[in-house]
Amino acid sequence: MQRISGSLWRWWSGLLLCLTLSAVAQADSVLPSWRDRTARTAIIAFVQATTTQGSPDFVPPAERIAVFDNDGTLWSEQPLYFQGAFAFDRIKAMAPDHPEWASKELFASVLKGDYKTALAGGEKALGQIILTTHAGMTSDQFNAIVADWLRTAKHPRFKRPYNELVYQPMLEVLGYLRANGYKTFIVSGGGAEFMRVFAEQTYGVPPEQVIGSTIKTHFELRDGKAVIVRDPDIDSIDDGPGKPVGIARYIGRAPIIAFGNSDGDLQMLQYTTQSSSKKRLGVIIHHTDADREFAYDRKSINGKLDKALDLAQSSGWIVVDMKNDWSRIYPFEQ
Amino acid sequence: MQRISGSLWRWWSGLLLCLTLSAVAQADSVLPSWRDRTARTAIIAFVQATTTQGSPDFVPPAERIAVFDNDGTLWSEQPLYFQGAFAFDRIKAMAPDHPEWASKELFASVLKGDYKTALAGGEKALGQIILTTHAGMTSDQFNAIVADWLRTAKHPRFKRPYNELVYQPMLEVLGYLRANGYKTFIVSGGGAEFMRVFAEQTYGVPPEQVIGSTIKTHFELRDGKAVIVRDPDIDSIDDGPGKPVGIARYIGRAPIIAFGNSDGDLQMLQYTTQSSSKKRLGVIIHHTDADREFAYDRKSINGKLDKALDLAQSSGWIVVDMKNDWSRIYPFEQ
Repeated sequence: MQRISGSLWRWWSGLLLCLTLSAVAQADSVLPSWRDRTARTAIIAFVQATTTQGSPDFVPPAERIAVFDNDGTLWSEQPLYFQGAFAFDRIKAMAPDHPEWASKELFASVLKGDYKTALAGGEKALGQIILTTHAGMTSDQFNAIVADWLRTAKHPRFKRPYNELVYQPMLEVLGYLRANGYKTFIVSGGGAEFMRVFAEQTYGVPPEQVIGSTIKTHFELRDGKAVIVRDPDIDSIDDGPGKPVGIARYIGRAPIIAFGNSDGDLQMLQYTTQSSSKKRLGVIIHHTDADREFAYDRKSINGKLDKALDLAQSSGWIVVDMKNDWSRIYPFEQ
Repeated sequence: MQRISGSLWRWWSGLLLCLTLSAVAQADSVLPSWRDRTARTAIIAFVQATTTQGSPDFVPPAERIAVFDNDGTLWSEQPLYFQGAFAFDRIKAMAPDHPEWASKELFASVLKGDYKTALAGGEKALGQIILTTHAGMTSDQFNAIVADWLRTAKHPRFKRPYNELVYQPMLEVLGYLRANGYKTFIVSGGGAEFMRVFAEQTYGVPPEQVIGSTIKTHFELRDGKAVIVRDPDIDSIDDGPGKPVGIARYIGRAPIIAFGNSDGDLQMLQYTTQSSSKKRLGVIIHHTDADREFAYDRKSINGKLDKALDLAQSSGWIVVDMKNDWSRIYPFEQ
């Protein structure tokens, strides 16, 4: 073997030192809004185990699929699902063209701001509100309506645009996973086209990686222009057992990682962690911080977390305690 | 400015020369199985126009979506759609467990190899064959059945596995577009889960970028294992006007490029090229080579190309003449 000259040796040791320091710095800078507790450690350990060549849990890049619920997992969902707030605001905006609504109890309640009475009609009432506000226009027109609402509407408690109420620690998870070759998908009970308006800019998730509930549409040539028209009819509900069905339909394979926060995510968590014997990661975001966000679980109307919480331990899912695990909730906090 | 030493200068000029030669070689080596005619020139010019910064037709990378029909566009579709051949082979494989089929005309015809009589029952007969062979098992089981068929079945004329009958010039288009930042999707009337078994290895298209017809499925825990079960019920038909609807549902925005070969691709071509005033690319593969492949268009049962061919010129779509535009059809040709 050729003798290594002194200067080359010094250069070599210097390089090694730099690489070591940079690895340490990198590990420290990962997920900075997560406190150094069990949840953060488990997420990092899982990502390292699945992305290190030669690891028994190594996952080839093409199979690195991570799925995220949206409402309550990536952004807040209280006091009302944000898409519900959008629908009520739309009813108000559309009311001048619909004088007949004044005498219809459902719409009259919404116009008075009495959402509780409006929603007392259950799924049927909600469906009517959704279809009235989400159908009857082209996809491009709908996108423009949602974009305009996001620019102008404010959350009642935080007085900020709704898409600022995203969780900083989850933005960090999304970025960390993508930096490690994971493809990140949203799998939400919310409307796919509603989320697609902001998901790319807000989460870095492109429209084709947003799976959600859909209404029926049809294709039309209007004055020579090709358009997609939104019809007042439900196509699919991407919630509960509908989530693994949606994942199979859109992605075509089981995810490696799933993040959720409610019983609506139960079957997605099961599909992710219980469809193979390999090491998988399931995470539940538990809303425990009434001061900085909201505290709710088993009794909540929005984002009820009951059965999935009972099954978390036996299923090996990590339960994130927002109050203690997250040093920061929203990006706008200092 | 510091004087450039002779050796550095020679190194620098050598590098420039290499880069120039490599650019020329690259342009020459693009789409090598395409003869240097109008179609090849137009495809290359379009890709350069949409990917060159500062070009009036520049498309940001996130919006570079290219969609491809499968049957007749990426692989052959004669004398029978290959998925039809799969279904008939499955009927034969399943027959020993179904003695009652001997007395049912539809199945008896298939078992005799009399596909013409079997398909005389039209869509209803075809639907019964498809649902009998494509439902009643888990997704994983279905994938294994298709993979096994691809390993063992042979095309009646070419005596090769069906997934060798892919078009070399189209493999080159897929690779060329991906090298230029395009995301390539399959949008086919064929079954999504059928195509996903081979699309990644054959075309480099991952399952989550394969859109096709689907049957209904449901989620189940079987002995503690999470599975997706395929139900005997059509979910969506991704053909004709169903293609832009599928694109809107799965991708969430209109493509920049579309390749098709039949009237089933008409609305996808219109949605791609007529939903905005910007420069878009629509291409029709015209089957004109009876010697090397098959020649058919307006009168064919599979891949009928009639109305879309009439509209090609006024719509600005490129019509590829397989016989004259392609120097090679299949990868196995020398």
